[in-house]
This record gives sequence, C-alpha cells and structure tokens, in this order.
Amino acid sequence: MRRFGFTTLTLVTIALAATAFADSHAQPAPDDTVKGRRALMGTIGYHTGILGKMAKGDMPYDAALASAAAENLSTAATMNRLTIWIEGSGVGSAEGTRAKPDIWSDPVGFETAAMGLETAAAAMVIAAGTDLDALRGAMQGVGTACSTCHKAYRAPAN
Amino acid sequence: MRRFGFTTLTLVTIALAATAFADSHAQPAPDDTVKGRRALMGTIGYHTGILGKMAKGDMPYDAALASAAAENLSTAATMNRLTIWIEGSGVGSAEGTRAKPDIWSDPVGFETAAMGLETAAAAMVIAAGTDLDALRGAMQGVGTACSTCHKAYRAPAN
Repeated sequence: MRRFGFTTLTLVTIALAATAFADSHAQPAPDDTVKGRRALMGTIGYHTGILGKMAKGDMPYDAALASAAAENLSTAATMNRLTIWIEGSGVGSAEGTRAKPDIWSDPVGFETAAMGLETAAAAMVIAAGTDLDALRGAMQGVGTACSTCHKAYRAPAN
Repeated sequence: MRRFGFTTLTLVTIALAATAFADSHAQPAPDDTVKGRRALMGTIGYHTGILGKMAKGDMPYDAALASAAAENLSTAATMNRLTIWIEGSGVGSAEGTRAKPDIWSDPVGFETAAMGLETAAAAMVIAAGTDLDALRGAMQGVGTACSTCHKAYRAPAN
C-alpha cells in the first residue's frame, strides 16, 4: 500500500511536471494564436474590403484612402509569419480555426501561397493611388491570391 | 391632393438621394471601421502579449519568437492611420467602440500618443532579440505607450 501510494505520488508529480513544461513552452497557447491570427486576417479583410468596394463601385474612388488601404494591406501581408502560423494551432488543436494541417505539412507550398498575397498587395500599392482602372486591375491579383491560399489551406466553413 | 402627392414624392426622392449620397461616401461604414480597428488592436495586443509573458516569466524567453513578435508589433504600430481612425466611428457614432471624440478634436495630441507606441515598439525591435533583460527594459516603454494613449483616448469599459 505504501509502495502503491509512493508510485501514485511519483506519477502525479511527473504528470504535473509535464503539464508545467507544456504550459511554459516558448510559444503562445493555441487559442491565443488563433485569436492573433484572426485579428491579422481581420486587418487584411478590412483593407481588402475598402479596395474591393471601390473596385465594384460600392464606394466612390478616393486615391488617398485607396493608397492607405493598399499600404496597410501590403504591410499586413508581409508580417513575420513565425508568430501567427504556429504548428499545433490548426483544425483539431484549437477552437475557432479553419487552418488546415497542410499549412505545416506543406510549408513550401504555403509560403508560396502567402508570397502570392505579398506580390499582389505590392502591385496594389502602386495601382491604388493611380486611378480606378488601375485599382480594378490590381484587385484581380489580390482576389486570386486570397482564393488560391484559402482553397488549399483553409478548411470549408461548417 | 395631386400637389400634396407630388410634394411628398419630391421629398421622398430628395431623402432617397441623400441616403444614397451618405451610403456612397468615400469611407467605410462606421461599424466596419470599428471592426477593422479592433482587428488591428488585436494584432497589437497579441504580439504585446507574447513579449509581456516572456518579460513576466510566464513564457520562456526565445530570441527568435521575441524578435518576430517585436517586428510585428512595430509593423502594426506604424500602419497608416487614415483607414483606421475615421471621424464618425467613435463612441456615440458606432457600436462596440471605446474611441473617444478627443481623437478627432485633439489630432496633434493623438498623433503624439500614437507615435509614442511607434517609438517604444522600434526600441523593442532592437531589444527583443538581445536578451531577456533588454526585452524587460523595452517592455516598460511599450506598457507606458499603451496606457498613455488609452487613458487619454479610450473611454472606460462599461
């Protein structure tokens, strides 16, 4: 009985130590990562929305606002991905995410898709302040970059 | 009766035209602006959180992750404010915001406060990858910048 008690205590101690180790990993908790990622996607979506509404004629074209939106879209697209795409924060590991495991099993493909948005957003920075036709042309590239990455690396909505 | 009908129709036409004009202003709707602003604040908060946890010892210090978080904090802090701080998207004009009217009545003070975060975040970019002591020193500046701006330009939580 004493020996059993000791063994149980030892196992509990090991389990607690393992939990403490997991808690103190040098990375944010998966749910925090999802919140941070959704915030960044919200920033990308907000600025793409301004440009998209101008392209569709749902908002009057304004060169200064379009330029600022393009600049912020480009800035958001080029953020360091190390803090945002942390392995273990995808579907099945965290709540409220549609990030597919392919992001981590196919890192070269994912990086290529992410670079697609960087490239399209950089073109938009040039186009947005030029005129509405230029903005519309660049918007096609932005839309393609969004959908290419989402099709491959984002799970369907429930 | 006919005249009254005509007048009513005219008034309705004017009212519809005015609504269409308001809808087609070259700026996002206030509620959309609030969402975009909260997304950017979420990005700032997420990366400040990583650095703050390392500073407090709640997350082990990791130079690469700290540097990436500092870089993204700095990038978010320097985003073009034109799309985010649109007049008419503060308390009383939109839902879910604590942005005080002082942001727009005191633009020089607000810009100075916003520049405070840019400066503190730039210092953090240098410090974060150096060592934990440097990160802790720079964290004080980031914390001061956050609280200085929030005290002056963010309404208390309900």
